[in-house]
Amino acid sequence: MKLAFFCLFVCLLYATACNRSDQTEQKHSHAAMMKKMDEPKVSIQTVGILLYDGYNTLDAVGPYQVLSELMGTRVFFVAKQKGLVRNQGGVQIQVDTSMAEVKHLDMLVIPGGFKETYLMTKDTSVLNWIRRIDRTSTYTASVCTGAWVLGATGLLQGKKATTHWYRAKEMLEKYGADFEPKRWVRDGKYWTSAGVTAGMDMSLAVVREVRGEPYLKAAMLDLEYDPQPPVVGGSVANTDPETVEMMRQMYDFGLRDVMPAEQKQK
Amino acid sequence: MKLAFFCLFVCLLYATACNRSDQTEQKHSHAAMMKKMDEPKVSIQTVGILLYDGYNTLDAVGPYQVLSELMGTRVFFVAKQKGLVRNQGGVQIQVDTSMAEVKHLDMLVIPGGFKETYLMTKDTSVLNWIRRIDRTSTYTASVCTGAWVLGATGLLQGKKATTHWYRAKEMLEKYGADFEPKRWVRDGKYWTSAGVTAGMDMSLAVVREVRGEPYLKAAMLDLEYDPQPPVVGGSVANTDPETVEMMRQMYDFGLRDVMPAEQKQK
Repeated sequence: MKLAFFCLFVCLLYATACNRSDQTEQKHSHAAMMKKMDEPKVSIQTVGILLYDGYNTLDAVGPYQVLSELMGTRVFFVAKQKGLVRNQGGVQIQVDTSMAEVKHLDMLVIPGGFKETYLMTKDTSVLNWIRRIDRTSTYTASVCTGAWVLGATGLLQGKKATTHWYRAKEMLEKYGADFEPKRWVRDGKYWTSAGVTAGMDMSLAVVREVRGEPYLKAAMLDLEYDPQPPVVGGSVANTDPETVEMMRQMYDFGLRDVMPAEQKQK
Repeated sequence: MKLAFFCLFVCLLYATACNRSDQTEQKHSHAAMMKKMDEPKVSIQTVGILLYDGYNTLDAVGPYQVLSELMGTRVFFVAKQKGLVRNQGGVQIQVDTSMAEVKHLDMLVIPGGFKETYLMTKDTSVLNWIRRIDRTSTYTASVCTGAWVLGATGLLQGKKATTHWYRAKEMLEKYGADFEPKRWVRDGKYWTSAGVTAGMDMSLAVVREVRGEPYLKAAMLDLEYDPQPPVVGGSVANTDPETVEMMRQMYDFGLRDVMPAEQKQK
């Protein structure tokens, strides 16, 4: 509904006001609430989300929205160059921070996409920047096929990880990671999520890690995140194999120009 | 992961290719798939999402992403003026279509926000434009507090509807609508959803309505939408009353400058 980091800041003000009020019951209630929502356990003051032409919108905006719930955390977009960056459908978002300007992030998030994401796994300047940021980050994360890019840096070597279900095992093994078919996986400082919408669940898990469960519940209430998909589905395990195979073949078709022939055979 | 409307278009090409191939089994599988994913039952060729400074990002981008799964549907943003529109956190998105340019939409989506959304309920030019579009739309929809704006047009009079949980009953009754505390509500051509993330569930229900359940399952697999929130929560019914009350009071505090005093007392 609105920026909870503002709201939760207001909350602190409010608690102070309550302490001055004579409404004893309310005072106790808020004092208890404040006690539950104590100081962050992990300091995440900056979150940079890497955008590039062809990124998948919700891969980036899901974590943007959820992590913006963290009070005192600045969540912003970073791209190779400042200016308008296009999503897969051509919608342009204004990015005010270039990669060259960012020397440190508490948390880096790499969203996925499709063809352009695959091409990013070959982009040395991007891979080097990710490696540089990762040296001092508290968390380094990917959403969906963003794990292909993170994998290509070598940082997932020997780590457990997940990614969008399409060629998940193959792509992660290629980079020395162990694929775990989970909604999200944390291995040390590395967080990876399954496809698109899983980035939100992963980000909520980060919120819990940083601020604790009572805070998470307030954030989820702000986002009214009590999902009710119209039907059961959304993962390979609960979708009919015919649909899974059709989608897999369509993705293959979409990548036919960029993926090496031997990889297509697998 | 990627634009399914592209993928599903490719699917048609693929099915044609299969018909020419000698892989009988695959041919049958795809023919069956194609049969399941038949022609749209409802023609939704244009979806306009109304942006305004202060809109809540995911309220707009959730439906954008989900409805973009509809093959042959153009999903775009509309604002009072073309140019950069700011979300609640200051992130700017480029809007290429002004309200004045749009005379008809098959589907209109009104995202919510907070203070600016409340102020929009008083903006006659916006309300008149919504009423005009609604005259020929197939579906008119709101997400989160977007229902406050839709309600202010008078179009929800006598309708069942939902909105973000904060002052939900009060705000909908003010506009003559019956609040139903559901994830999303459809009453004739009007679709309304609960807060923020509920816009995605509502949009998936629209996808099912337009293209049927097998298509919906393919779209959900593309989005890997099999949500797994880290904890139970996200709605008033499954969150402790203390947290609900704290959030409610914070929202009140945030609206103190714009909401009339008598309304604040309720």
